[in-house]
Amino acid sequence: MLPIPAVGWSADRRALRYLDQRRLPAQDVVCESAQLDDIIDAIRTLAIRGAPAIGVGAAIGLAVSLARAGGGDGARARALLADYAPRLAAARPTAVNLAWAVDRLLRVALGATDAALLTTLAEEAETIRAEDEAMCAAIGAHGAPLLRDGARVLTHCNAGALATAGIGTALAPVYAAHAAGRRVTVYADETRPLRQGARLTAWELTRAGIAVHVLPDGAAASLLASGSIDLVLVGADRIAANGDVANKVGTYGVALAAHAHHVPFYVAAPHSTIDAATPDGRAIPIEHRAAEELDPLPSGAQAWNPAFDVTPRALITGYLTDRGILEPPFVSLLAHRLP
Amino acid sequence: MLPIPAVGWSADRRALRYLDQRRLPAQDVVCESAQLDDIIDAIRTLAIRGAPAIGVGAAIGLAVSLARAGGGDGARARALLADYAPRLAAARPTAVNLAWAVDRLLRVALGATDAALLTTLAEEAETIRAEDEAMCAAIGAHGAPLLRDGARVLTHCNAGALATAGIGTALAPVYAAHAAGRRVTVYADETRPLRQGARLTAWELTRAGIAVHVLPDGAAASLLASGSIDLVLVGADRIAANGDVANKVGTYGVALAAHAHHVPFYVAAPHSTIDAATPDGRAIPIEHRAAEELDPLPSGAQAWNPAFDVTPRALITGYLTDRGILEPPFVSLLAHRLP
Repeated sequence: MLPIPAVGWSADRRALRYLDQRRLPAQDVVCESAQLDDIIDAIRTLAIRGAPAIGVGAAIGLAVSLARAGGGDGARARALLADYAPRLAAARPTAVNLAWAVDRLLRVALGATDAALLTTLAEEAETIRAEDEAMCAAIGAHGAPLLRDGARVLTHCNAGALATAGIGTALAPVYAAHAAGRRVTVYADETRPLRQGARLTAWELTRAGIAVHVLPDGAAASLLASGSIDLVLVGADRIAANGDVANKVGTYGVALAAHAHHVPFYVAAPHSTIDAATPDGRAIPIEHRAAEELDPLPSGAQAWNPAFDVTPRALITGYLTDRGILEPPFVSLLAHRLP
Repeated sequence: MLPIPAVGWSADRRALRYLDQRRLPAQDVVCESAQLDDIIDAIRTLAIRGAPAIGVGAAIGLAVSLARAGGGDGARARALLADYAPRLAAARPTAVNLAWAVDRLLRVALGATDAALLTTLAEEAETIRAEDEAMCAAIGAHGAPLLRDGARVLTHCNAGALATAGIGTALAPVYAAHAAGRRVTVYADETRPLRQGARLTAWELTRAGIAVHVLPDGAAASLLASGSIDLVLVGADRIAANGDVANKVGTYGVALAAHAHHVPFYVAAPHSTIDAATPDGRAIPIEHRAAEELDPLPSGAQAWNPAFDVTPRALITGYLTDRGILEPPFVSLLAHRLP
């Protein structure tokens, strides 16, 4: 059984269809909308989350909301575009894929006639969706050989189907190996404070019939020490040119423990996550989030709540991308992009 | 301001007085009871928790409940003792201090006349309480020199005043340095799944006027990497003869990160925690707890929820005890106890 798409088109292609991830795992609610305000709200409140899924959701959402509000009239839709695009792009200011997807639609709009505008936007949105699905499938294909029958994989946070329009990034090799008939067991860190591992990773894997065990984040080191894990697979929010990786906070601790116990540690991400403009991990700004995420706390206690941490290149066995397993300094990929 | 005692006597010495830790940090409820069933329930449901506090609570609880139920008559109290002692000792079967405290009271009861029984039991319970308070103070005195003015300490779980009848074990040096006028800032791991760091450590430190920042367990490695921590102080549930330490799950990951960033890592515990009969960490059985502690989980997901992990001796800078800072193989302490 394949995972449910986190974002895509409604059956009539007139609306954005998405799983409301705020309600997982308690409720499995699929929403459809072609109203810009609803779609902005869905992205802002994490009903749609994960960088690739946000990009796809924004692209489809912009195309369908312009078609709906413009009454199918390209000229009226074009007039609305200047209002809609920046509002959508601002739904989560730090999500790079969001602005990137909106920009791609703006660019094709510039080259389209009024008559062709709505069709062109829908086609570009579908291209973005299909590229994302293909990216996931490619990571899965490159990564599946790492997982023998009976493999036990530790992951952190959610870099699965729910974060993309396909089968995920870190979880793509798991789905690919499962589809090939191999038995895989996933150990998912709970991932405090927002519990994406317990809520999302565990949900999508059990839906797909893959065995999953949730552990407190603090138990990852002793799990790795116990010899029960063959491979660690995590996603990445940004990969620096030297190979340092920013990912959900907690990743670095898992990498240290994997290294101490000689367990291979792979980072899985689209090759576009490798950022030639970022020389190393020290150049990656780390977002700090609100103390409320750690509630309840005693009155007077403060919170130290970074969203991400940086795992140094020395702890990473390989970089599993849609272009294969790469090695820093990623010469084949970045040579033409370096200054 | 000193911390509130977690366990002790009521003002008239006729009841056990304790803070109901189940309600912290939302409510600050002090209970008094001389009813055995209430006291067993308080220990079983973690209203009183922390090995030293459980031992003291059991000792005082047994003395006062026998005095109450026996109507102050030693002969009647002695008849009840054979019923009360095993029931109390079974409140939490794995808590070594509980059985140890009950045994101490049984032993003095054997040597006392009926007329002196209730006084003898109360005196022994007070001795256990006072020894615990003195043990904490001694750890604080030996550990305080490790904390310069402005020191930043990372801790995990709660090995503080709430776990003892005094100023705690891992937090004792913090209270001692604070009392000496030095500024100390504590970073407390949240400590999933039961959040003892966020609920208990943060509560008792803020009550005492000591600055505390709570962090998700997964953030400890990047906090240590950031250079913001001078010292790690944790408690211990058991210390093996070779120096390996069993403590709350998550301790090992903190130790790995402290080692990677050259931050001193001290284990603080009464010297009685060093167990000559346990040669090394592999010999320490690890309790696994119910999946419910990680609720809510998606239907079909399992939990991997060990209560403790083992930190190897190589990652530990020093063993801070009531007898000073010790080094394995703890010859001065254990020589006469070894087989």
